[in-house]
Amino acid sequence: MPMKLFPKKINFFEYFDNDLKNLSRGTQQLVTIFENFGEFKEHAAKMQDIEHDGDLITHDIMRQLNSSFLTPIDREDIHALASRIDDVLDQIWSAVERMVVFKFTEPTPQSVQMARDLHKTSLVLQKAFNELRAKDYDHVQEYCIEINRLENKLDRDVREALGSLFEDYKDDPLMVIKWKEIYEHLEDAADRCEDVANILESIMLKYA
Amino acid sequence: MPMKLFPKKINFFEYFDNDLKNLSRGTQQLVTIFENFGEFKEHAAKMQDIEHDGDLITHDIMRQLNSSFLTPIDREDIHALASRIDDVLDQIWSAVERMVVFKFTEPTPQSVQMARDLHKTSLVLQKAFNELRAKDYDHVQEYCIEINRLENKLDRDVREALGSLFEDYKDDPLMVIKWKEIYEHLEDAADRCEDVANILESIMLKYA
Amino acid sequence: MPMKLFPKKINFFEYFDNDLKNLSRGTQQLVTIFENFGEFKEHAAKMQDIEHDGDLITHDIMRQLNSSFLTPIDREDIHALASRIDDVLDQIWSAVERMVVFKFTEPTPQSVQMARDLHKTSLVLQKAFNELRAKDYDHVQEYCIEINRLENKLDRDVREALGSLFEDYKDDPLMVIKWKEIYEHLEDAADRCEDVANILESIMLKYA
Repeated sequence: MPMKLFPKKINFFEYFDNDLKNLSRGTQQLVTIFENFGEFKEHAAKMQDIEHDGDLITHDIMRQLNSSFLTPIDREDIHALASRIDDVLDQIWSAVERMVVFKFTEPTPQSVQMARDLHKTSLVLQKAFNELRAKDYDHVQEYCIEINRLENKLDRDVREALGSLFEDYKDDPLMVIKWKEIYEHLEDAADRCEDVANILESIMLKYA
Repeated sequence: MPMKLFPKKINFFEYFDNDLKNLSRGTQQLVTIFENFGEFKEHAAKMQDIEHDGDLITHDIMRQLNSSFLTPIDREDIHALASRIDDVLDQIWSAVERMVVFKFTEPTPQSVQMARDLHKTSLVLQKAFNELRAKDYDHVQEYCIEINRLENKLDRDVREALGSLFEDYKDDPLMVIKWKEIYEHLEDAADRCEDVANILESIMLKYA
Repeated sequence: MPMKLFPKKINFFEYFDNDLKNLSRGTQQLVTIFENFGEFKEHAAKMQDIEHDGDLITHDIMRQLNSSFLTPIDREDIHALASRIDDVLDQIWSAVERMVVFKFTEPTPQSVQMARDLHKTSLVLQKAFNELRAKDYDHVQEYCIEINRLENKLDRDVREALGSLFEDYKDDPLMVIKWKEIYEHLEDAADRCEDVANILESIMLKYA
């Protein structure tokens, strides 16, 4: 086999495009789970597949990163981006896994809303990424601000949901413990989305 | 506009000076909140302003970092330092936000003490940073050891406070859940202060 | 004193060998604690020594890293590896510390099993590291897959243990809060072991 003088250039944009599309499938699936709580089991199983696909994509990105000499964006940014996108799906999957353990029979109204906002966030992340790829930097910033706004909204919603929780289940502390954990995973998922937006913004600032 | 051959040098020390002063304002405000629980609402609003100011300073540092070629300290250290200082205020603000949700009418005696120790820690962090800036490295180490000691004390205090909590509120599990979360945020804030001290120490070791 | 033209080369492999041996001592000690709950106090004291030894090793690695110009593996990998190994022992020590606070009189059967699996994991980590050092890369990957498998098993065990917890202590929410926290620390410890395995794998990919 002839030695390659130059390593092949990896299209990381293509990988992240895939990764973010898979993330949106995940957030959409979370909405499906909450909106169809009667068929929780089937929908949770599909979420597990999506989370697993995300793991494979992350693993692929990291492996390519280790074997590439030339990357279109800084190595540490690629690493951080892949890690944070992976974290979002991890948190969502943790929430779903815990719901299996907790044997919920219905969602709280607030949890449905949180899932919808996470899905919205993932769609805006895709848009921000596409604009970054197209070098349309003004829109990147715009979309990052929108993600920030959605994260703030979800934070507020979690606070209100927690308030209701402590009121509504005054006599059922176990229920408080259970839903509090679900809300915290969804809050963490939104935080990690904001991290992704911050990384996209910082990549933009380096190259704009 | 003529092209600049050399990018302007950013005074990161000035930024961190500001950042740490703002952190001390935050820890002082936490003490104020706990010592004046009757006026919780006004004092919490002021804390939100301080947390917001901290976000702006962090954002400024990161933006300058992305546009600077020459930095007085390693880029990754600047990034880590700004991130960890931001984390401290985030944890403190999370504690305050949760106290709003939990509608506490009075603090526990241990929480007041924790706030005071966090404030002490932030003052020592400022001293350590000033000595690093003045290249008086012996004192940097001394102050970092002091921060370590304060973090250990707060850890111990949290453990004792948790012990009391489970005794005092044997029949009120919701109260246990609530205060446990507050204590954990304060414990995390102290951990992040220790991270800041560790970063200062490692910067010192590189340049001493 | 004559100036040294070349800094001495530090044997980081030796340090990590030590670090991982200390980690295995820690996981073994956790098993001892759970299997001899009657002598909790003495065994917990020994665990504190092990955790402290780990801190010293981590501190040493970081200090050497800051003063070395040549390292056998990338600086950021050394830093990440030392940090994550430190995290594992931190989580284990946090679990033990909380058990002191919670005044448990006996372990749950699941917690004993988790400790054993953590110990198994730490032994496989040692093997993976030794093969990396010996440049026998095929076995590194094999052991990393084994660690992944053990982490998945522990995750599953935690979920089942949580399920039992909410059933068995239906009328004792404080017990649920207490054991839930212990399980979470052990789950985090296993997650950090997996991080260590991932770092070893990525070092291998760079050098294989």
